[in-house]
Amino acid sequence: MRLHYSRFTSALKEKFLATLVLALLVGSLAAQGLAQGNVGKLIDFQFTSPSLQGNLLGDPTQQHVAVYVPPSYDSAPKKRYAALYLLHGYTSKLEDWTANGYQGMSLQTVMDEFIRRGTAPEMIIVVPNGDNAYFGSFYTNSPVTGNWEDYIYKDLVAYIDSHYRTIPDSASRGIAGHSMGGYGAIMLGMKHPDVFGAFYALSPCCVALEGDAGSDNPVWAKAAKVTSRDIFNKKPETYDDFWTNVMVALSAAFSPDVKKGPLFVDYPFKEVNSRLLPNEPAYSEYRAKMPLYLVDKYRENLMKLRGIAIDVGEFDDFSHIRIGSHQFSEALSSRGIPHSFEIYKNGDHGNKIRERFENYVIPFFARSLEFGPAQKPE
Amino acid sequence: MRLHYSRFTSALKEKFLATLVLALLVGSLAAQGLAQGNVGKLIDFQFTSPSLQGNLLGDPTQQHVAVYVPPSYDSAPKKRYAALYLLHGYTSKLEDWTANGYQGMSLQTVMDEFIRRGTAPEMIIVVPNGDNAYFGSFYTNSPVTGNWEDYIYKDLVAYIDSHYRTIPDSASRGIAGHSMGGYGAIMLGMKHPDVFGAFYALSPCCVALEGDAGSDNPVWAKAAKVTSRDIFNKKPETYDDFWTNVMVALSAAFSPDVKKGPLFVDYPFKEVNSRLLPNEPAYSEYRAKMPLYLVDKYRENLMKLRGIAIDVGEFDDFSHIRIGSHQFSEALSSRGIPHSFEIYKNGDHGNKIRERFENYVIPFFARSLEFGPAQKPE
Amino acid sequence: MRLHYSRFTSALKEKFLATLVLALLVGSLAAQGLAQGNVGKLIDFQFTSPSLQGNLLGDPTQQHVAVYVPPSYDSAPKKRYAALYLLHGYTSKLEDWTANGYQGMSLQTVMDEFIRRGTAPEMIIVVPNGDNAYFGSFYTNSPVTGNWEDYIYKDLVAYIDSHYRTIPDSASRGIAGHSMGGYGAIMLGMKHPDVFGAFYALSPCCVALEGDAGSDNPVWAKAAKVTSRDIFNKKPETYDDFWTNVMVALSAAFSPDVKKGPLFVDYPFKEVNSRLLPNEPAYSEYRAKMPLYLVDKYRENLMKLRGIAIDVGEFDDFSHIRIGSHQFSEALSSRGIPHSFEIYKNGDHGNKIRERFENYVIPFFARSLEFGPAQKPE
Amino acid sequence: MRLHYSRFTSALKEKFLATLVLALLVGSLAAQGLAQGNVGKLIDFQFTSPSLQGNLLGDPTQQHVAVYVPPSYDSAPKKRYAALYLLHGYTSKLEDWTANGYQGMSLQTVMDEFIRRGTAPEMIIVVPNGDNAYFGSFYTNSPVTGNWEDYIYKDLVAYIDSHYRTIPDSASRGIAGHSMGGYGAIMLGMKHPDVFGAFYALSPCCVALEGDAGSDNPVWAKAAKVTSRDIFNKKPETYDDFWTNVMVALSAAFSPDVKKGPLFVDYPFKEVNSRLLPNEPAYSEYRAKMPLYLVDKYRENLMKLRGIAIDVGEFDDFSHIRIGSHQFSEALSSRGIPHSFEIYKNGDHGNKIRERFENYVIPFFARSLEFGPAQKPE
Repeated sequence: MRLHYSRFTSALKEKFLATLVLALLVGSLAAQGLAQGNVGKLIDFQFTSPSLQGNLLGDPTQQHVAVYVPPSYDSAPKKRYAALYLLHGYTSKLEDWTANGYQGMSLQTVMDEFIRRGTAPEMIIVVPNGDNAYFGSFYTNSPVTGNWEDYIYKDLVAYIDSHYRTIPDSASRGIAGHSMGGYGAIMLGMKHPDVFGAFYALSPCCVALEGDAGSDNPVWAKAAKVTSRDIFNKKPETYDDFWTNVMVALSAAFSPDVKKGPLFVDYPFKEVNSRLLPNEPAYSEYRAKMPLYLVDKYRENLMKLRGIAIDVGEFDDFSHIRIGSHQFSEALSSRGIPHSFEIYKNGDHGNKIRERFENYVIPFFARSLEFGPAQKPE
Repeated sequence: MRLHYSRFTSALKEKFLATLVLALLVGSLAAQGLAQGNVGKLIDFQFTSPSLQGNLLGDPTQQHVAVYVPPSYDSAPKKRYAALYLLHGYTSKLEDWTANGYQGMSLQTVMDEFIRRGTAPEMIIVVPNGDNAYFGSFYTNSPVTGNWEDYIYKDLVAYIDSHYRTIPDSASRGIAGHSMGGYGAIMLGMKHPDVFGAFYALSPCCVALEGDAGSDNPVWAKAAKVTSRDIFNKKPETYDDFWTNVMVALSAAFSPDVKKGPLFVDYPFKEVNSRLLPNEPAYSEYRAKMPLYLVDKYRENLMKLRGIAIDVGEFDDFSHIRIGSHQFSEALSSRGIPHSFEIYKNGDHGNKIRERFENYVIPFFARSLEFGPAQKPE
Repeated sequence: MRLHYSRFTSALKEKFLATLVLALLVGSLAAQGLAQGNVGKLIDFQFTSPSLQGNLLGDPTQQHVAVYVPPSYDSAPKKRYAALYLLHGYTSKLEDWTANGYQGMSLQTVMDEFIRRGTAPEMIIVVPNGDNAYFGSFYTNSPVTGNWEDYIYKDLVAYIDSHYRTIPDSASRGIAGHSMGGYGAIMLGMKHPDVFGAFYALSPCCVALEGDAGSDNPVWAKAAKVTSRDIFNKKPETYDDFWTNVMVALSAAFSPDVKKGPLFVDYPFKEVNSRLLPNEPAYSEYRAKMPLYLVDKYRENLMKLRGIAIDVGEFDDFSHIRIGSHQFSEALSSRGIPHSFEIYKNGDHGNKIRERFENYVIPFFARSLEFGPAQKPE
Repeated sequence: MRLHYSRFTSALKEKFLATLVLALLVGSLAAQGLAQGNVGKLIDFQFTSPSLQGNLLGDPTQQHVAVYVPPSYDSAPKKRYAALYLLHGYTSKLEDWTANGYQGMSLQTVMDEFIRRGTAPEMIIVVPNGDNAYFGSFYTNSPVTGNWEDYIYKDLVAYIDSHYRTIPDSASRGIAGHSMGGYGAIMLGMKHPDVFGAFYALSPCCVALEGDAGSDNPVWAKAAKVTSRDIFNKKPETYDDFWTNVMVALSAAFSPDVKKGPLFVDYPFKEVNSRLLPNEPAYSEYRAKMPLYLVDKYRENLMKLRGIAIDVGEFDDFSHIRIGSHQFSEALSSRGIPHSFEIYKNGDHGNKIRERFENYVIPFFARSLEFGPAQKPE
């Protein structure tokens, strides 16, 4: 008798769970006789969105997009695929998903491997850019930053559906993202259930005007004194600098003021006698863009969705993300809106993105979306 | 080109998801070279628990237990396995898990198939009886019904660990259950994290004294008038009868009174001027047994657990289960206690038990527990 | 030494608190030299509201109104007064406020006494009828029952301001009510802060679609079988009958259907396989009329109000009122909306209305509203 | 006709409400024939508490106490009075209640005037010192700071009852306080309902380990580096300095460590990789002293109380006070515990203390406590 020590212990789990995933569809995929050696492709291209025209930050209408197509795409030329839109975070880039970004993740390598093993269904994954001159567009419409929401859910979806063999139906289209991208996933899913049939928000930012996004954060007062865009000439290094950037970028997205150059923003708080008080109308404009305060307005939309998932690490660095994700789940629960919520152990804001994508996001969409007719390669 | 229509649509999903499961460990299990033809075994036996001695309902100390051992158990005689304790619901029996019960589920068939495919790790599953003369013990200690909590977490665990090749450690021992069994899973997990390292509660009952378990339910007044045990001579047929049985059984478990034969119960509510008001001390005794009110007391225990999961169907028939599961999740969230919570679509109290077990419970423990060193069959 | 045993004990409190009240303004009112012997007047009249025209229940456009004017009204003919609109409950009548109704309360007697003592400011109190063919209009607009909201906040306010010497400004106009009237006070205050500057809701009904107003209540299924208006030929006697009436009346107000005579209602729940499931669009129409789900929509309005108060007895007979008032307060709190909320001891739905009016409602408006320039009687 | 312009407008309210109060008992007090010219007395004395012996901060066992006795105290030598214990805040002193402190408030002037007008019942008010070498004892027991809880609820209450003509019963004894004193009022009321029959917490601190009392506050990391008591040699001037003092003082009270001189504290958070993580056992020791986490433990006590009131200004400077007071009210509500909660307009942490005391605290105790037999002066 020889022992074969492939212990499936915690130590190994950390190593393996990063590359393994819960497998759905083992049987049915095997039955489809997928060629095991096939690999997918990652296609990079520039896409011009009319929705970004006229933005005041000088950001181009031509934006970078990456699209992953699965292994059978070329060999099964009549097959159509479900599509997942995957959004990145603030001060991040789409390459964090596609090219050795989050915990070394490369989208193609992960997906090829999972599909090969039968642990993920074949699907198209679309990774748009959400970065702008302020380090983040928040995927929302604004006269200052441009209409990023329209760019994604209208322009880009139309382009993808006409240039790739997607199943052009909300039942087969999902959206996910991390942090700023988690915010985008919630908002676009909540507002457009006819476009996206399910959403998964990883550690979503900006869900509520609470904690370090609220009047507790003394940086609001500092941000109010910024008078030039120079702060966006280099990546922020300190906590204060990071937050200053966030506050300008968020305000350009949530409470823009086209008359107030060079930054074109109003802030939701103003300092009065050393205290930060609500500053209208920016304060209400912020709330009108934050998911927690929109649950009743979009309740019927939320009920239409095939799947809603939110997660957050127990030690997320941003208190408004811990608070907001919890309160959003609570708001869904108290209105009877089906969803899953997880606070996961040992997680901070960014240390588990890849593991969550592999073990939770992909299985979630595998369960939530419709995947089209299987097709034998010719 | 021939189309092969094995559409992975909703219709097929319903059919397949009942027999498929998310696969963990595909690679590592394949590497272990498990003989694909092997099957596990379901062992039925009688177990005598000293903890049930002296109960006033006349229930025997000898109880029925079923144990599933996985395919490699006999061929790898030195291998040790993680163990899952699986609890059934009120008016239910352990056979609902093991023999064509919940949605036709048979534990051995499901587990053999999943392990064969590599979609579940090999593990031992222990299914104790929780039924008693009142149709349900609630897995709790009571001078009237006997010490069912001790029976499970002390007597039975000790027996299993000494008679089966378990990994005798909380990191490799989990507990799950449905309804009354979900209640048991929460309580035993919350009170004994040194015994059970993770728990999964499916549609748990009795989490809070709210909704139809609270003073809204007019059946409390009816139950108070029951004077004999005859109501337990047949299974209840009407809603009122069912609730009357529940209330007697719950009260024998939560607010027993050894001096008040033949039922030996106090009730948490009493009728005063046509209204149900709290009846002390039973009212407080109930709360001292209900998870929602114990979160602060057991917060440190809860933080020790490797995994906590609660789910509930959006249309659960019992309002206290919808309310209680939501409030319990909320209580965990507001204390920063990691866990997952899901309200799932199209679910009522019992229509998805098998699907949840296969697609959620098994993967949850696969991720949460430690599985021992792999071992080649000789 | 002689003891004078006017012990201010609980027993006496119950007796006295019903006729005493916290006194505001002792000094200032005394300074105004009010003639102590003066009494106010209760004026009854019929008022024709165009807003009720065309209702399908055959209710008249001419409605009964009672107006209390304070002692100085005739002797100080140039003085103007703040006005409180006071709404009654379901199956109740305006006389419950004015003529030996709630705990024997008569509005004029109470107010005269309080003003005489200096414990209430002089004010006008307007008590409209809210009863209709279905035993309650819920003070809302409906094509079936008529536009009762418009009748109160537009027609009646305009009439009162033009026929009585009110201070015609929201800062000097408040609204309060009990149960159905509490619902009306919240809705009219929340929607029309430019008309009513403060509201006090006593044990408000219909704040949330929860508890016995939700799918827990089996009477929804019974109500769905009612086919004639005969149930409104006599006051309901049993709990089921009462709820049947409520459900028809609420549905005529919240989810009317002008094509479905003779009742003209849709219901928010329908029975499916012995369970009550949401029935759209009625379900959403209900929610669009219930305060809990409107807090975000009307948040800015709520912030404008000078005062918001909600109370409920700890033993309120209606679970949706206990739940709804608590959740509404919670929703205000989590949005930082100033308000007061009280769960009071020993209270059920109706046993403390007079005490609350005297000791809480009147002082609340004394603090919250603007009372005009004091004026010496000539 | 001459107009007498004593407008009761907002402007005047601000001026007057500070000296007026809602009057309870006008009639009955008048009936008692109180001599209108009488005044009460404020008695200052030193009181030696054995409970403070052996504290490690070198604070004396002899402490300053002020007692207000009402006008009739000397002239009605057999009359007994209800007693209110009134606690001050951190970096504050008892003189803030008694000698031109909060908004110029002097306890005797206020009470004499209110009693003269009949707007407050005659009562004894006891104002103990809660200040110590760390600028605040938090009225709790600690081997480092001494047993301040015992000092108040045992030693001082016994002394007052034996030296003053109180009604020595919890029904006639209340406790209130502001900020740190609000915390003390909640804790002492919640733990000792047999001593204090009602409590009123004004803007209570330390109710929850959230917001700026939680891991969001970077000052925890700074406090951890303090190595001497020099920071208590002068009153703090900056926000950081203030919080550093608070954190040391709180930790000496909540998570003391007698072996770690010179400060003798453990902190509930520790810095790990630039983040503040829970530091056990201090973290749990903190929670074991914070009211939010004790509601279930003391639920029966809370139900025994005759009155519970909590308030907070909408703009309270401390986020943990806004959050904690709201969550505490929510926790009481969800357990059906009667209480009142108010978020009041235009309030910050300290700008309305006097107004709240006069218009809310005094009327609250007038309604909640038992006042003894009235007695004619001889």
